[in-house]
This record gives sequence, structure tokens and C-alpha cells, in this order.
Amino acid sequence: MRNPQPMVELWRGGLLESQHLGHAVIWGEGGMIRSWGDPEKIIFPRSSCKMIQALPLVESGAAEAAGLTDRHLALSCASHQGSELHVEMTGRWLADLGLSERDLRCGAHEPYDHIERDRLIRSGEKPCQLHNNCSGKHCGFVTTTRHLKAGPEYTEIDHPLQKAIRQATEEITGETVAGYGIDGCSAPNFAMSLSGLARAMQAFSAATGAGDGRDRAMHRLTRAMADYPEMVAGEGRACTELMRAMDHKVAIKTGAEAVFVAIVPEKKLGIALKIADGSGRASEAAITAILADLGVLDPKHPMAQKRLPAEQLNRRGLRTGELRLSEGFL
Amino acid sequence: MRNPQPMVELWRGGLLESQHLGHAVIWGEGGMIRSWGDPEKIIFPRSSCKMIQALPLVESGAAEAAGLTDRHLALSCASHQGSELHVEMTGRWLADLGLSERDLRCGAHEPYDHIERDRLIRSGEKPCQLHNNCSGKHCGFVTTTRHLKAGPEYTEIDHPLQKAIRQATEEITGETVAGYGIDGCSAPNFAMSLSGLARAMQAFSAATGAGDGRDRAMHRLTRAMADYPEMVAGEGRACTELMRAMDHKVAIKTGAEAVFVAIVPEKKLGIALKIADGSGRASEAAITAILADLGVLDPKHPMAQKRLPAEQLNRRGLRTGELRLSEGFL
Repeated sequence: MRNPQPMVELWRGGLLESQHLGHAVIWGEGGMIRSWGDPEKIIFPRSSCKMIQALPLVESGAAEAAGLTDRHLALSCASHQGSELHVEMTGRWLADLGLSERDLRCGAHEPYDHIERDRLIRSGEKPCQLHNNCSGKHCGFVTTTRHLKAGPEYTEIDHPLQKAIRQATEEITGETVAGYGIDGCSAPNFAMSLSGLARAMQAFSAATGAGDGRDRAMHRLTRAMADYPEMVAGEGRACTELMRAMDHKVAIKTGAEAVFVAIVPEKKLGIALKIADGSGRASEAAITAILADLGVLDPKHPMAQKRLPAEQLNRRGLRTGELRLSEGFL
Repeated sequence: MRNPQPMVELWRGGLLESQHLGHAVIWGEGGMIRSWGDPEKIIFPRSSCKMIQALPLVESGAAEAAGLTDRHLALSCASHQGSELHVEMTGRWLADLGLSERDLRCGAHEPYDHIERDRLIRSGEKPCQLHNNCSGKHCGFVTTTRHLKAGPEYTEIDHPLQKAIRQATEEITGETVAGYGIDGCSAPNFAMSLSGLARAMQAFSAATGAGDGRDRAMHRLTRAMADYPEMVAGEGRACTELMRAMDHKVAIKTGAEAVFVAIVPEKKLGIALKIADGSGRASEAAITAILADLGVLDPKHPMAQKRLPAEQLNRRGLRTGELRLSEGFL
């Protein structure tokens, strides 16, 4: 077991103020290509594994039976910010299934999107489950559940949907799941090694769409995410902005507690990283740096520059701190 | 230089998900009593040193000349949440000086207080500088500046006010400042060792109010913070809730990037801690644990329980994770 290594630092007035350590793995066609920290670190992928959790939706035929488009599939892999776009689309998705927001099991929270948040506050409406950043995933879950004619409590660990997700997870990571926890949206989240997660992302990156059902599902989900970045997160967010900056050639996804994954089809690479302390500012900076280092993200692109090296400006526009890569990270 | 040590961890499904390392020092009458990690670590105290930054306000006679009460002084040491209480009091303070919000140099940001935030959104008002969490400190700054008949740009490093703060800082920490950075509110923030900060807090804890001007200023500021916890942060916040839980006997203050200090008069102790990665959830849990370990905070008090060991519940009330102390920390 190797220790996490320094990846991202906050500097202020010429002095190191805070430091983030992490683990990361790049997996290629022949296996592990590069690693930082401990590649065998057991992690919870949290929302970074939503494309794995969406595999049964496509593979079971549920997506096709429900007439889902690639925009729906992108939303099923999303941690969206509950903007009008996301709320309308999840609402219509459920209505088309003859279901409603009450059939979801994700809970409600204030949307991250400020326009929608302010609209709710002004109108006196309460946020509903459609505003939950995981509501797209849960729409996918109920779609699959209905197709499987399974019961409504689809977040329970022994529900047929969760069994199918566990099986897909084990097949694609090449390892037995190391346990599970309950995610913020009430769904089980299977623990796995970081290298298992990177290996799974590599499988997505190598899918051509011309193979078996698993291959076609992985290819379609990757394309859906990369083609519709605004569905996967939202305006201003790292996943959306960086996928656009990479010209829709790479699919990336963040997860709570500072997980980030990338699927790089043109190089048949999968990447997984976890910042040990759970800091999202660090995972965003680290994945930006790794993608730039691999040559798939232009480090001069404004959306890359926004994240690394990132000047911290205060409310009066003064430069206060700077987020930097740790020496020796790349 | 010693490495930071594990202090606080997030567990989920029986597995360690994220870990926070930190440094801490407890300083007593005879010097350092206990330390974790590197006591000589150079840190930016950020807002945790607001009571030091308020020393010139009291020592210069500016507070007395302006007729400031202990509630004003508590507010001058605050990182408040911009609730109606804080906005009204800072607004009146400035008006009493014949000044206005435009004389502040802290910048505006959306208040953390949701009642005031929602009111602004509903009325279409924009947040002003009074909503800035540092506006109380800046009211103190302009009060001192006016008393010193100094110029209006009081956040500049060579302004007489900042020179006075630097001098007080060096005297009370017993060390030359290790440089400075610009804080989020545009004021200089002097770098110091963690032990220097703990030593300064010990000086505050030992002040009796019966000594020289410095002693009286330290005693009054400590009493102001502990007596008016709602001015120092706000409802729901760690500083406010924990000072109430300790029956107003201890003054505590958080700072950005996971700094926390405590002044414990009944034991003549000063405490300073810094989580290396800058995580506020960890600094709150760690200071809660240290105060409980010292016997000045009842670990069974609901406000302590809220922070450690803290169950993480999701929007549907399900237990998802748990914040725990690292083994060997206490």
C-alpha cells in the first residue's frame, strides 16, 4: 500500500497554504500505463461510475423500448445542476413512462443552478426530486426497473437492478466488489480499486459500437456523454466545460469526495483519480493537468486555464492565492 | 519538519473514504503542552486571527472614542454570515461614524445566511459590502483608521493600521512575521508558525483585564467573543454553537483553509490547529474533539455531537457516511 502523493497545492503570498494528496491510474490496452500513489487503493467511485450504473439500462433493452435518445442517456450519467434544462427533461422522461417525480428515490435538494434556485425562491416553490443532481440516473433506474417488471424500491441492495449493476461492475472492473456504501442519492455505491475503475474506463474507451451488447452499450454511453456535455453537469461546471474544450472527443465525469474519471477513445485510455481528502477543487485541477499532459486537452484553452494553474481572485478582483500542481506530480 | 498527522476521516459502508491530516498545538503558561504534526509549520491564520487584528482598535482608544460596545467588538472579530442582525449592526456602526458601506474595502458577496439571501433574491436587491463575512472586521478597521487620522486605503500593507497589526502580531506571537498574503477580504494576512498562533491565543487566555493596555484589550476581546457568539458567526455555525455549548467560557474562531483557534481562560490555554488540505469539516471536527478532550466541552452536548462523531444523513434521512476521529489522534 503506497501513500497518496502531492498533486495540487494552494499558494498565497509566496507560501504554501494547503496541499492535496491523491492516487491516480492510467489504464491502456495492455494494462496499467502509469500510476500515482496507490493504484490498488479501494475507493468509492461515487457519481464517477454513473456510466457503469447505466449499462443495464442500455443492455437490457429498456432504453430502446422507452425510445430514449442520446440526450437521455447523457442525463442518466449526469450529476447535473438542476437547471431548467435538466428539470424539464427529467420531468418529461418520467411523464413519457407514465410515472412522476414521486416514483424517484433520490430525495430533493436546492438546485446548484442559480437561475433555477432564484426562480424557486422568488416563486415560493420548494425544490423537488427532479432538482436532485442524480435525478437523471434515477430516471434511468426507474426505466430499467419498469422494463424488468421489478418492484419500486430500486435502491435496495438486493433489487434486480442493483444486482445487474453489481454484475456489470464486477465484469468491467475485473474484480469482485469490495463492499458497498449508500450514496447521497440513496443508491448503493460499490467499492472498487482505483485500478479497477481505470480498467473499466479503458473498456469504455475501447468500445467501437460494432461488437456485442456490452460493447455497443459502452460505446453509446461514451458518445452520449461527450456529445451532450451540458446534460452531464451544466453551465460553468468542470465536466461540461472540459468536454467542450476537448471538442467532444473525451468523456469525463466527477464523483463526490474528489473522484474523477476520463474515457479517451482516440488513445484507448481510461483514467481514474481520487484526492485522498475529498477536495473537488483538487480533483478538477488534477484531471485537467493529466488530460493536458496526455495531449488531449489544450492547456491554454480558457476552460483549462480556469482550473489550472488557477489564480484565486477575490470579490474586488485582487489576486489572493493560486492553485498549482505539486512538484513532481507531472 | 514533521508531517501532518491523520485527524479526521470520512467512513462509508465500513470503509475509509477520505482522510484529513493536520497540525495542532496547545500552549500553556509554561510553553507548549502538546502538539500534533509540525508545531513550527508556517500557516496563514486567515480569519482565525481577527482578535489579533482587533487589538489596535481597542489599544489605540478608537473603540472607546467611538463608544463601541462588546457586541461591536465581537463583530469586529467575526466571520459572520450576513444575516439581518449582522447587516443592521454594521450599517448602524458605520452611520454612527458618519461613514457608509462605500468606505469599506472588503467587497460584496452573497450572504451565507439563507433567510437574508432569500430576502435579497425575492426583493431583487444585490448583496452589499455589509453582507461580506468580514464586514465587522472592516468596520473595526475604519474605526481605527479614522481615529489615527490615516488615509482611506486601510488594506494596503504600509497603511498605519496594518503596521500596527503587524507589530501587535509580532509581539503576541513572539516571532517575526513570516511574510503575508492577501485574504479574501483584501486585507493583508500575516504568516506565522502554528505554535506562534497558539502562543498568541494563550496570551489572550491569560489576560485578566487588570494589567496594561494590551492585557485589558485581550481580556475585553475574549469576553466579547465568548459573551456574544451570535455576533462572531451566526445561527447554525460551529463558532456560535460551540461557544454556547461551552457556556460562554471559551472563545473560538475559525479561519479559511481549515484553521481553528481556541482561547481557554479557565485553564490559561491557547490552541491553534490547521488541517493541511484546508477542509473546514475536518477543522470543525478536530477542534471539537480537542475541546472535549480538554474537558471544556461536553462531548454529549448536541452541538458537539453534531460535529463529532458526525453521522452523514442524506436528503431522505438515510445514514450514508460518518465523520470519525483518526485512530491515535486523541
